[in-house]
Amino acid sequence: MARTPFGRRTLFRTAAFGAGAMGTAMALSACDSRPTEAAITRPWDRSVDLAREMLQVGARDVDLKLEYLRVLIDRGLPRTASPKRIVVVGAGPAGLTTALLLRDAGHDVTVLEANGSRTGGRVKTFRGVFSDPALYAEAGAMRLPDGHPLVLALADKLGVRRRQFHNVDIAPEAKSEGAVPAVHYRSFTGEQWSNGEPTEYRSAKAADRTLINVNGRIVTRGTYTADPAVVNSGFGVKWSGPVRVALNAAMHTVEVPANRPIGEQIDGWARVFNTYEDYSMHRFLMERGWDLSQIGAAGTLENLTSRLHYGVIPALVDHALISPDARYWELEGGTASLTDALTASLGPAIQMGKRMTRLEQTDKGVRVWTMAESGSEHTDGCFVDPSDSFDADYAVVAIPPTAARFCAFEPALSYPKRRSIVELHHDAATKVLLEFKTRFWEQGPNGFRGGGCVSDTPNRFTYFPSHAQDSDGGVVLASYTWSDDAMRWDSLTDSERVYFALAGMRELFGPRVDAEFTGTGISQSWMRARYALGEAVIPTPGQLHEHHASTRTVEGRVHFAGDHTTLKPAWIEGALESAVRAASEVHAR
Amino acid sequence: MARTPFGRRTLFRTAAFGAGAMGTAMALSACDSRPTEAAITRPWDRSVDLAREMLQVGARDVDLKLEYLRVLIDRGLPRTASPKRIVVVGAGPAGLTTALLLRDAGHDVTVLEANGSRTGGRVKTFRGVFSDPALYAEAGAMRLPDGHPLVLALADKLGVRRRQFHNVDIAPEAKSEGAVPAVHYRSFTGEQWSNGEPTEYRSAKAADRTLINVNGRIVTRGTYTADPAVVNSGFGVKWSGPVRVALNAAMHTVEVPANRPIGEQIDGWARVFNTYEDYSMHRFLMERGWDLSQIGAAGTLENLTSRLHYGVIPALVDHALISPDARYWELEGGTASLTDALTASLGPAIQMGKRMTRLEQTDKGVRVWTMAESGSEHTDGCFVDPSDSFDADYAVVAIPPTAARFCAFEPALSYPKRRSIVELHHDAATKVLLEFKTRFWEQGPNGFRGGGCVSDTPNRFTYFPSHAQDSDGGVVLASYTWSDDAMRWDSLTDSERVYFALAGMRELFGPRVDAEFTGTGISQSWMRARYALGEAVIPTPGQLHEHHASTRTVEGRVHFAGDHTTLKPAWIEGALESAVRAASEVHAR
Repeated sequence: MARTPFGRRTLFRTAAFGAGAMGTAMALSACDSRPTEAAITRPWDRSVDLAREMLQVGARDVDLKLEYLRVLIDRGLPRTASPKRIVVVGAGPAGLTTALLLRDAGHDVTVLEANGSRTGGRVKTFRGVFSDPALYAEAGAMRLPDGHPLVLALADKLGVRRRQFHNVDIAPEAKSEGAVPAVHYRSFTGEQWSNGEPTEYRSAKAADRTLINVNGRIVTRGTYTADPAVVNSGFGVKWSGPVRVALNAAMHTVEVPANRPIGEQIDGWARVFNTYEDYSMHRFLMERGWDLSQIGAAGTLENLTSRLHYGVIPALVDHALISPDARYWELEGGTASLTDALTASLGPAIQMGKRMTRLEQTDKGVRVWTMAESGSEHTDGCFVDPSDSFDADYAVVAIPPTAARFCAFEPALSYPKRRSIVELHHDAATKVLLEFKTRFWEQGPNGFRGGGCVSDTPNRFTYFPSHAQDSDGGVVLASYTWSDDAMRWDSLTDSERVYFALAGMRELFGPRVDAEFTGTGISQSWMRARYALGEAVIPTPGQLHEHHASTRTVEGRVHFAGDHTTLKPAWIEGALESAVRAASEVHAR
Repeated sequence: MARTPFGRRTLFRTAAFGAGAMGTAMALSACDSRPTEAAITRPWDRSVDLAREMLQVGARDVDLKLEYLRVLIDRGLPRTASPKRIVVVGAGPAGLTTALLLRDAGHDVTVLEANGSRTGGRVKTFRGVFSDPALYAEAGAMRLPDGHPLVLALADKLGVRRRQFHNVDIAPEAKSEGAVPAVHYRSFTGEQWSNGEPTEYRSAKAADRTLINVNGRIVTRGTYTADPAVVNSGFGVKWSGPVRVALNAAMHTVEVPANRPIGEQIDGWARVFNTYEDYSMHRFLMERGWDLSQIGAAGTLENLTSRLHYGVIPALVDHALISPDARYWELEGGTASLTDALTASLGPAIQMGKRMTRLEQTDKGVRVWTMAESGSEHTDGCFVDPSDSFDADYAVVAIPPTAARFCAFEPALSYPKRRSIVELHHDAATKVLLEFKTRFWEQGPNGFRGGGCVSDTPNRFTYFPSHAQDSDGGVVLASYTWSDDAMRWDSLTDSERVYFALAGMRELFGPRVDAEFTGTGISQSWMRARYALGEAVIPTPGQLHEHHASTRTVEGRVHFAGDHTTLKPAWIEGALESAVRAASEVHAR
């Protein structure tokens, strides 16, 4: 993350990379005095707020992340002198963590979860569904980056073991060396936080044997790196390097100050938020002189194609917060081990199968009406409403805005809150998982473990298990897609998804996939999940300044938590940040 | 459609309307020499092609629409001297019409339809599902504007009776006067086409009694027109008129030449296509000086909110082709009466339950592989593939690109065609229909017939039947949504959709809806329909120049038809244009 200081001059610097054929010229030089910012400016105070949140800078410039680590991991909230009755709506990571913090501080907490069969929300591990009972696989969150200390330290604290998630494939015989390292966080204040002593840990080296299957040609990633033309030419792109390098260079044209006094960092990021609010990824790349074939190549290989119309800012933020070569972790037994542990701690405080339909509040308290749920999380056997209600002093709504859309609030929520619920764009994300009798991809001289293949078939991204899970077999995430790529799968039935995902695997590995397939496949569409109603917020151009602040404003006695209230949507880390924030708010009343 | 001549000067004129509070200033005046076009330009020849297609100008400046009318309605294709074997894939309006034209010209035609239970594609009428067997309602296409002569004349030709669709409500006792008028088309060449003598027809007058339910307040449209502040103030908007007027004014800032020599019209529209290719609706309105509250108001009332990130060009084109006060028609017995009539004409040439999975071609011919389908169009009982194949000289692929995404082509399709299939954004559209025992909304002094209500509840748009359908009851389109608004409903199950749609009706009409509801409701999500995989193409910024031309290019012996190959996606008229074009192409080989 070493960056040069922010300079306005470099904001529109064109990615000077390779041959950089520019099919469409930029007309920016027509007038020297043309402002380098976009034509439309946004309220500067909102830009500053976004920058502060992104950098986790609180009031009086305290480091919020450090504060959150101390509350969540080290000491909890102080014991309350005046216990309150609190209803938390939603038992995803945000709701569960909020509830646990408040319960441990002495409050009387009830968690209402719509799902009658499990907690965890978009943390969901498929277990007991494969023919080998030892196998499990992730329907939702599957990797935890090093840059997310809250979730890693929470797992450590709860005794949930973690191990490396190989985002890039390694040789099957390769082993990482040393004990899993402690979580370490270095603040912009100079302070440091850790949950253990530093250890030696060395990741196994990338093998780069996973496959790229585009434009009718299949090569390994290693081949592509050695000879980029074999892939780039298929898109009509003359770049001399891999497109990832060009994409990183384009992102780096937005200069933001790192390793500078926090005031400068805030100012720099505020300028980025202000300048690029209205930019889609497509517009951003076009104005950097990229032509359509280059966008096509980067879109296919770097998973941008279906997201070109989304705002560029989330990509810039992610790029800054999670480095492209980040190290990732996974949880033994599945990511749901984390939410299971939180659930076990809360015990009978959680009421399952209670779906909020209405939230009433007066100046005295809140009442949450729920509907009894039957059926699975995908089909309702019988949708009737023997209503139940729960009274409390305060409520924390920790469900996605998409779910809140179908709840009545009395009195009505504020105008900005309502609009954020109605308008914030939510992405689709869909996984199709196939079980195989052996991990055949690990065999032979070109075998690999972990990592992922990329294809221009409907499958798009195919991920392989990083660990053996006490089985000869393995579950492959045969297709992992987002946005429009995911919508295609969402139109299909479960068995169609399995059928077509296997067809995509056949293109990569030949007919042996048919012999290896156990016949068990399962899929998860987050857009079609009736309690999630989408994967996560991803703002379209203009939505961040307009709606982000409203996601977390307090409405009377009602507080809001969830990854959507942070700049880390879709990440457990964001859910946890929001949980500490919301629990602290309620605790302080 | 009277417009002043195109002038570059007016392209960025700010909508001078009402008080026009501008919360965010435009920085366009900083430099006089700043080009008024967007910074990124597109290949001009593509812009001209788009303009010609939009205006239906063919080679040697013939009027394609006139030509299509003559072929489809008047005389068919000339009888062939060398009959060919032709497989048409897909029995929607495009495929059926292509097949009929070719069959009537003497070719040997087979139509393969994936759906085992019906033809029609996205033309679908729910019949026999309501408790009153006389009632039917539209799952898909429901209104045919005057500006679409092909579909109106085709209905007339096939003996399918039409009657007015009241897009705006009328008094229940009001009657339109005179016989349904003949279809009339006036070409830019000065030529005219009609399928009958002019008659006197007078539409019943708008009553404007349908409701606007936003920001906690319910008023009639008439009240809103008389006192715009009652609604506008809820959004914090100070406009003195209805937002529709402001929106039309904003669209009119893009000046295009009408009633001018066709060369000037082409040039003017080419400039529009070229200039606005990269503009989303959001960016377009922002650069016209609109603030977020104004966009919020127009978004809610004029159905833009969930589409702000889509390209503005489709909106500009629709605005030019279908005037805001257009007259619409519906077909007696439902829109499917049209595709039923086409289906009956084709008879045994249509093979149902045959889903294309693979299309092979050599220089000698084509072979289409299909999979036998079981189950309904929403659930597959058993997804196996006893394959079948069909040989022919030529194929016409008349399925959505989203469906083609899951077909294998051997040899591979061209790069541009593949990318258009992968990338073109498809919109979601979802309807929830509820049956009521009486048409209670027609009763009392404020009763109305037809037209629609708008709400900021999840229902968003609610349409009422224009005609009694020989029943005391009626089916209300309780919720009609697109894009993100539709995605919310798509996450829910059928019974949840009915439950929440009824809740939205209750807000409009009070608890009597519960007593009036027959208990029968049904919904249609086009994104979740496994053969449609979306409602229709709606390009995101940048996609039109890049992909539109490729949708219809011929690939060896394979031709392409469908509304997505035209600038009238989602309209039957577009499907018919494409059918005449594709049939003519194949016929001419």
